[in-house]
Amino acid sequence: MAHRVINFYAGPAGLPLPALERAQEELLDFAGSGMSVMEISHRAKEYDAVHEEALALTRELLNLPANYKVLMLQGGAHLQFGMIPLNLLRGGRKADYILTGNWAEKAYKEAKLVGGENVRVAATTKELKFNRLPFASEIKVGEDAAFVHFTSNNTVEGTQWHEFPQVGGKPYVCDMSSDLMWRPFDVAPFGLIYAGAQKNLGPSGVVLTIIREDFLEMCEAQDLPSYLRFKIHVEKNSLYNTPPCFGIYILRNVLAYNKSLGGLAAIEANNRKKGELLYGCIDRHAGFYKGYVAEKAHRSLMNVDFFLPTEELTAAFVGEAKKNGMVGLKGYRDIGGIRVSTYNAVTVDNVKTLVDFMEAFVKKNG
Amino acid sequence: MAHRVINFYAGPAGLPLPALERAQEELLDFAGSGMSVMEISHRAKEYDAVHEEALALTRELLNLPANYKVLMLQGGAHLQFGMIPLNLLRGGRKADYILTGNWAEKAYKEAKLVGGENVRVAATTKELKFNRLPFASEIKVGEDAAFVHFTSNNTVEGTQWHEFPQVGGKPYVCDMSSDLMWRPFDVAPFGLIYAGAQKNLGPSGVVLTIIREDFLEMCEAQDLPSYLRFKIHVEKNSLYNTPPCFGIYILRNVLAYNKSLGGLAAIEANNRKKGELLYGCIDRHAGFYKGYVAEKAHRSLMNVDFFLPTEELTAAFVGEAKKNGMVGLKGYRDIGGIRVSTYNAVTVDNVKTLVDFMEAFVKKNG
Repeated sequence: MAHRVINFYAGPAGLPLPALERAQEELLDFAGSGMSVMEISHRAKEYDAVHEEALALTRELLNLPANYKVLMLQGGAHLQFGMIPLNLLRGGRKADYILTGNWAEKAYKEAKLVGGENVRVAATTKELKFNRLPFASEIKVGEDAAFVHFTSNNTVEGTQWHEFPQVGGKPYVCDMSSDLMWRPFDVAPFGLIYAGAQKNLGPSGVVLTIIREDFLEMCEAQDLPSYLRFKIHVEKNSLYNTPPCFGIYILRNVLAYNKSLGGLAAIEANNRKKGELLYGCIDRHAGFYKGYVAEKAHRSLMNVDFFLPTEELTAAFVGEAKKNGMVGLKGYRDIGGIRVSTYNAVTVDNVKTLVDFMEAFVKKNG
Repeated sequence: MAHRVINFYAGPAGLPLPALERAQEELLDFAGSGMSVMEISHRAKEYDAVHEEALALTRELLNLPANYKVLMLQGGAHLQFGMIPLNLLRGGRKADYILTGNWAEKAYKEAKLVGGENVRVAATTKELKFNRLPFASEIKVGEDAAFVHFTSNNTVEGTQWHEFPQVGGKPYVCDMSSDLMWRPFDVAPFGLIYAGAQKNLGPSGVVLTIIREDFLEMCEAQDLPSYLRFKIHVEKNSLYNTPPCFGIYILRNVLAYNKSLGGLAAIEANNRKKGELLYGCIDRHAGFYKGYVAEKAHRSLMNVDFFLPTEELTAAFVGEAKKNGMVGLKGYRDIGGIRVSTYNAVTVDNVKTLVDFMEAFVKKNG
């Protein structure tokens, strides 16, 4: 048995053990080919089966209608921050961005490099250090907006849109890098969804982009280098150039494991249990563990930020947790405190272990 | 012992077995961390050591002077086809491209999308179906060219620049995706070198870009999305966003193995032996095995293209080779025939096995 820790990193993050064991087992001989999946032509039938399965599992788990196309690309959410305005904001089209944290701001700034005045702020809670999401009354969407961009889960601040924002019926473009597949949801209001894999889906180096046909039709940028054009990747089924084959293979393993668990409804039930355990402990000891998020309804089930009474106790918490086999608990540099990331690969038992530790820690130090 | 075949794929291609065995061994527990290298934050010290080692080994093996920066990026050579003109051809700068094959043409077409009339052809052998490189007298470089782009090895056609082209002292920009690290060379004439990893260096999903400081200073494109700017990646040491950590880890394993073999001089000696064996066999049976390349001095030591007398014999060759544990021999779709790719990971013994098979095949069918 390999030595394994409980992994609460915010990303790259833990992966389901069965997905990794499958990779280890066949790392030198994939599908009886006598080669690693890293060593096979991306045009070979052995790789093609993996590629198609990853796409099909994505469609199945998300219950995607036929008018959505799935792409597996490179460059992470960062390259999507640029590709979205480069493709969609031609001809003076306008877009409104909801700013709810570090990553939402980055998406906005990158879009503004391309779209200038046509990229606008629909709402921001920056003056509150993003400790809650904007309320419906605070969101102003232009009549002329082609889409509204938001970030479904804010990994740094620990907020999450449990109900998606009210934007007057405009289509959403959404960065779901940290919570795609945490639960089932209706994709119908979304024109485009993107998600870097390295939090909830697989390793870094793969980004999923899901684009609706009417949004694809908006992509007119024929003078862009080909790699930057969504249309070309759709036409070539994400094989315009050599894809990140091993990353896609691990994504396939994770998605197959998700399916074996019973799909996204079963995964949601686990995620809700984990949230109840963790927030339950924080709320029981509200004088000791102080949550970052001001509105309970905005609390993230993916990233849980809280503070201890002193810096010394915070350091002791991280150090003792590590001794007890739990890593990745240090808060993001701009926030401090503790951040517990509880993506799909973190089990209910993992969270129980942490909560037991938190109870003992408050008993000793509270 | 895992079942393994001899891998002559053109890319993704075979990797050195020790590099893969190392990955398999620690896939669930990397560097005693209790996590896979895929599961660790890219800001964690365990990953940072891999990142730095990959960069340092690249510098060491290529003997790079301090005025060259090494980047590990995503999007493959295809994204570099676009990033190069986007970054370097601002303010009306001009560039000349030498067209020697399928990939050189793609690089040129992508650059032309960005640079228009400022991107020109310095030479082409397209009318010869790229069956040789241009001679020195055929290359016309503009006085006003900021750089000359060429493709050091042409994987489809099987030609290779053993002596780099004569371009009147203009700096080179070079796609070395299929032969970087096949031998030592002097980087001084190069302003920028790029190489997708999946042929000679590692898995797909990582591209190495090596840029000289004066070329970095030419990059003025502050209105580009950040991921597309070389300057940002240099400032952030290829950690502007989450890098393709596992791909970089495998790259590190391959480079460490290259060093253990004695570096690029030792690797070159192996590659020359492999070429002598393979071209020796073709030349001994010139009536049966007909090479694609018209000039012996332009023959590639990375990709060896040849034809058999009939389609039936070609199919029989591929089929019988496969039965004998050798895969990836089918020629590129536009060329047909046989292509033997003999990147660094293919051993002298692997090529001896193939040559023995070729000798037996000609005896039986010649």
